[in-house]
Amino acid sequence: MDIIVLSPGATERELKHIVKKLEGRGLRAHVSKGTERTIIGVIGDTSKITEDEENAIRVMPGVEDVMRILKPYKLASREFKQKDTTIDVGGKIIGGEKIQVIAGPCAVENRTVLMAIAGKIKDAGASFIRGGAFKPRTSPYSFQGLGEEGLKYLAEARKKTGLPVVTEIMDPRDMAILVKYADIIQIGTRNMQNFRLLLEVGIAKKPVLLKRGLSATIKEWLMAAEYIMSRGNEMVILCERGIRTFETATRNTLDLSAVPVLKKLTHLPVFVDPSHGVGKWDLVAPMAKAAVAAGADGLLIEVHTNPEEALSDGEQSLRPNDFSRLMKELKPLARAVGREI
Amino acid sequence: MDIIVLSPGATERELKHIVKKLEGRGLRAHVSKGTERTIIGVIGDTSKITEDEENAIRVMPGVEDVMRILKPYKLASREFKQKDTTIDVGGKIIGGEKIQVIAGPCAVENRTVLMAIAGKIKDAGASFIRGGAFKPRTSPYSFQGLGEEGLKYLAEARKKTGLPVVTEIMDPRDMAILVKYADIIQIGTRNMQNFRLLLEVGIAKKPVLLKRGLSATIKEWLMAAEYIMSRGNEMVILCERGIRTFETATRNTLDLSAVPVLKKLTHLPVFVDPSHGVGKWDLVAPMAKAAVAAGADGLLIEVHTNPEEALSDGEQSLRPNDFSRLMKELKPLARAVGREI
Amino acid sequence: MDIIVLSPGATERELKHIVKKLEGRGLRAHVSKGTERTIIGVIGDTSKITEDEENAIRVMPGVEDVMRILKPYKLASREFKQKDTTIDVGGKIIGGEKIQVIAGPCAVENRTVLMAIAGKIKDAGASFIRGGAFKPRTSPYSFQGLGEEGLKYLAEARKKTGLPVVTEIMDPRDMAILVKYADIIQIGTRNMQNFRLLLEVGIAKKPVLLKRGLSATIKEWLMAAEYIMSRGNEMVILCERGIRTFETATRNTLDLSAVPVLKKLTHLPVFVDPSHGVGKWDLVAPMAKAAVAAGADGLLIEVHTNPEEALSDGEQSLRPNDFSRLMKELKPLARAVGREI
Amino acid sequence: MDIIVLSPGATERELKHIVKKLEGRGLRAHVSKGTERTIIGVIGDTSKITEDEENAIRVMPGVEDVMRILKPYKLASREFKQKDTTIDVGGKIIGGEKIQVIAGPCAVENRTVLMAIAGKIKDAGASFIRGGAFKPRTSPYSFQGLGEEGLKYLAEARKKTGLPVVTEIMDPRDMAILVKYADIIQIGTRNMQNFRLLLEVGIAKKPVLLKRGLSATIKEWLMAAEYIMSRGNEMVILCERGIRTFETATRNTLDLSAVPVLKKLTHLPVFVDPSHGVGKWDLVAPMAKAAVAAGADGLLIEVHTNPEEALSDGEQSLRPNDFSRLMKELKPLARAVGREI
Repeated sequence: MDIIVLSPGATERELKHIVKKLEGRGLRAHVSKGTERTIIGVIGDTSKITEDEENAIRVMPGVEDVMRILKPYKLASREFKQKDTTIDVGGKIIGGEKIQVIAGPCAVENRTVLMAIAGKIKDAGASFIRGGAFKPRTSPYSFQGLGEEGLKYLAEARKKTGLPVVTEIMDPRDMAILVKYADIIQIGTRNMQNFRLLLEVGIAKKPVLLKRGLSATIKEWLMAAEYIMSRGNEMVILCERGIRTFETATRNTLDLSAVPVLKKLTHLPVFVDPSHGVGKWDLVAPMAKAAVAAGADGLLIEVHTNPEEALSDGEQSLRPNDFSRLMKELKPLARAVGREI
Repeated sequence: MDIIVLSPGATERELKHIVKKLEGRGLRAHVSKGTERTIIGVIGDTSKITEDEENAIRVMPGVEDVMRILKPYKLASREFKQKDTTIDVGGKIIGGEKIQVIAGPCAVENRTVLMAIAGKIKDAGASFIRGGAFKPRTSPYSFQGLGEEGLKYLAEARKKTGLPVVTEIMDPRDMAILVKYADIIQIGTRNMQNFRLLLEVGIAKKPVLLKRGLSATIKEWLMAAEYIMSRGNEMVILCERGIRTFETATRNTLDLSAVPVLKKLTHLPVFVDPSHGVGKWDLVAPMAKAAVAAGADGLLIEVHTNPEEALSDGEQSLRPNDFSRLMKELKPLARAVGREI
Repeated sequence: MDIIVLSPGATERELKHIVKKLEGRGLRAHVSKGTERTIIGVIGDTSKITEDEENAIRVMPGVEDVMRILKPYKLASREFKQKDTTIDVGGKIIGGEKIQVIAGPCAVENRTVLMAIAGKIKDAGASFIRGGAFKPRTSPYSFQGLGEEGLKYLAEARKKTGLPVVTEIMDPRDMAILVKYADIIQIGTRNMQNFRLLLEVGIAKKPVLLKRGLSATIKEWLMAAEYIMSRGNEMVILCERGIRTFETATRNTLDLSAVPVLKKLTHLPVFVDPSHGVGKWDLVAPMAKAAVAAGADGLLIEVHTNPEEALSDGEQSLRPNDFSRLMKELKPLARAVGREI
Repeated sequence: MDIIVLSPGATERELKHIVKKLEGRGLRAHVSKGTERTIIGVIGDTSKITEDEENAIRVMPGVEDVMRILKPYKLASREFKQKDTTIDVGGKIIGGEKIQVIAGPCAVENRTVLMAIAGKIKDAGASFIRGGAFKPRTSPYSFQGLGEEGLKYLAEARKKTGLPVVTEIMDPRDMAILVKYADIIQIGTRNMQNFRLLLEVGIAKKPVLLKRGLSATIKEWLMAAEYIMSRGNEMVILCERGIRTFETATRNTLDLSAVPVLKKLTHLPVFVDPSHGVGKWDLVAPMAKAAVAAGADGLLIEVHTNPEEALSDGEQSLRPNDFSRLMKELKPLARAVGREI
């Protein structure tokens, strides 16, 4: 069901023209004439009306507005699938009772540092290790990642600790290499609407951690998930990581209300990345706790043994001791919301 | 200490002119000549340089930028007063170990409804009752509040339940009436920079609940607190209630990271209003929990016995049963962060 | 005509309950049952449904959403009054063919400076003089204005130059003094939703220059105009002055598209204040030109004889020479869009 | 020159540690001890300090803040190259006295429509033809473009009209095909920080039209240009196309102040796309005029012979007649700002 609102001066002829157009598309028009406006209820399978056709209707003479009632995404919606999606990654269940924690450095810098971090986060209770081998950087003069060498170190860290690997893809041409090493493929915030990349991970047989775009609405975010799912890959994990607002006291504004909103709209698991959300290490712990209380299925936390020497995002990384303390403090919070960690 | 950055082409004469101006204000200039830029470190009591004088320096010939190191607020800052401020309202301590909950309808609509709500929230464990007698409404055709009659009902509800009253001021001319009935005076989001109103509550002998402006930075918010404190009233409670962003899935975007940020910058108690923050009743409970986990000192929650008949903001009000369940669920969360509720 | 969208699982009983409620309000319900959703077209004088009643419907069982077709403002709308409003201020017509320019300092600082500026802007071709006697300042430690003394200087400047006076009101208690001196009363950006102040100028017999709030939507802005007009004062001038966004290169983001949008929605004159919009003097001229090209009815430009000594906003003030050159450069632009200046 | 601000409690030992670190990087430290803070002026070639090293300094004990004085981009900056960059595309000069207009449909839909549009825009005075063969679409169910077939039609349109072709790249793997057909390669708003794509066009020998990201600051935008230029391609054209804000009356908020801001910061040509900026065809003309008045070097305008049948963005497309009238109306405006069109 869609609704077409006619403009105050719309003529009978314009109305007929619109009705005819709808009928030509196999739909029926239910016309309501009010005192100030006439509206048309469009009846039939309006999910087949594309965004393009909707825009075409919008510019027809006599049309003031078109309102869509149905959501533009389908596979990702809670209406399509009521039961929560769970994803099994090497025996670790994402989206279940246990809150999963992905930890690790922003970028893989070298073998020694990564192994040290891997051991520490394993001990503290993390379930997955993260680290970027291909790094999206605002400046062309910043460290861009180690590439496949970094992926190899991640694989080694997995071997040592048993923690599955989460790492980011930036270029569809890296797909073949990435699937060799990654357990979960991350789509970064700047690529949430890199549609070619979305289609590419859509045919991969790996879970995808889809970060919210810096200024993406929740609807656009779910449309990005729909891109991936429409290609056959339904293992999508959504990850809130802060949106861009006017506030400069934090790197971004972590939108925790996205967690309960998504829980209503979609069956997909929802993670939160407080490290990027706030951008300062001493704000990470309170926001990680708040994320758990808000109902997040998992956390993504940056940890570095020596933030002072980190090649990327040291400012927002927890030291192993702080991470370990946080993991302990999260336990009673998880229990208080009926989860475990 | 302030820093003045000279533009690349600044002349020696311009430099001298600036130095002389600073010395005329009783300050000393420490000049550093770099390879690309010259900067001046301003030494002395720069807190006496007003925003206006700073702007005047900014337009002097040869000046590229002025950077202030010191915060523009003083009384509100953690540097000025390290210890957390606590406020005693009729024996209830705000800013202490106990998380205080202010509950009630958006607007006081009539005596019967208010008394019913008051009884329910008291039973559920709220510490304060709220309700607007003067209502800021986007439309001139909406219900504007009962005025003094509403305040009388609030006072009656206090008498019945023992809950102190929190209510909003909109106009300096209502001050005399308001102080007669209110225990805490609320400054609403649209009035956060109504400076005359701030000065007015600054001379009142009542605690002030200062809501964050819809698009106020944390710095501007603390400056608004400074306005009140500079007049002598140091009993200021800050209340995060959502900021305006591009996202439309929620009424506002509740910025919970403001809680830990404020805990670093100021000694004042910090409350959170999840009802206005999200604008939908079924998102209130998860965000209330998240607020407690993030370290909030209190909550402000809208409760109505019959949201369907509410004259204002029914959409975001909890029913008494839901509120009561939330209060129970908050207990273990509060304990998990070392607080009680 | 309003539209009520029922949720997928809405029952027949819920539908009847809603229809009955509408009929109780003298409205008729036109029910359309689609394949996925049922919608109700509400027929009758829905303008009488307040925002509050709309919200009450929104929380009724079975309701998913309520969509309003009619605009929430009436007197301010182009539908209510098709012809452009023109306002005659001492023979100067606002909203007519001539683009009117209001110039002057941000704040009235002292008699000498104001008289000097007044002479300069008069010579350059300004039509009105502006200057604040009551100043809203972010910091309590900044210059707050001269009060009535400042108004007296403005009156003297008017006497000398013949330029009518535009000045800001901050407090309803200053109304009596302000009407004695001002020809146009300005409502500043921070007070756009100071509803008490709006009602107060609504009963004044003076034109009101209503600045857009820092984060006000165009709809909210028109609702603020409606507040004033609903009290009887239809002489409202809208003034775009920049909105708050994530961009920090400019003080605000001047939303020039608001000009043609408003020209469609309302009959009220639209001004633009490029000085506050960008916050840097060397960006004022290009944006003033762009405002004229976009269709603005007037400009508000800050001019100061000595920005280096200005007590407020010196950074964004034009020097008289620059202002004079701008006025000359605007002439062919105004002609190119069928106006004069 | 960079500035390091020490925290109030920083020790002498921490200060020495920082100074040593700087000296190890070949820099000198100029220490200023103020009454409230100590700052370090960093002297030497600080442009070699990467963003990463800056972040590392930021987390050193005793450091409160690091302020960079130099801009993080170099090749794109006005300081590096004072003279305006001009780009010659088949004899048409971009960035010179003549304002260049790129027109055409959003997407290439079929041969017939494209040829019709091409003829019309040529007659109206456009200098370039645009049209997407690869389309970034929010929904996976929307028209995704004709691919190489679309590029062939564009080449045919160029042959017929003599108008060089502007078309978008979405995927680095399409580069080889695109350079065969395009005269200017467009990077769309969603790909402004698709760094791999930026590096790819950086080695192309074609001018690049770089659209501003939906929520990109001007600084980030110039960093994206720097990415391209750092690879050797200095033919970058910046194109403002609206940013995301809270306002919903327009599709985006066209930030025209970006034009004069960029004119100060960079030597690169600046275009404006009012069609995407506002998203409604009847707002395009006033904003196109405003862009010219603000100093834009060119415009990008969507034109379609039959917006009602357009497969993409029909709502914001001008009909040929409206476009033709706009081109005529722009002439005196261009002259009024010393340009021609």
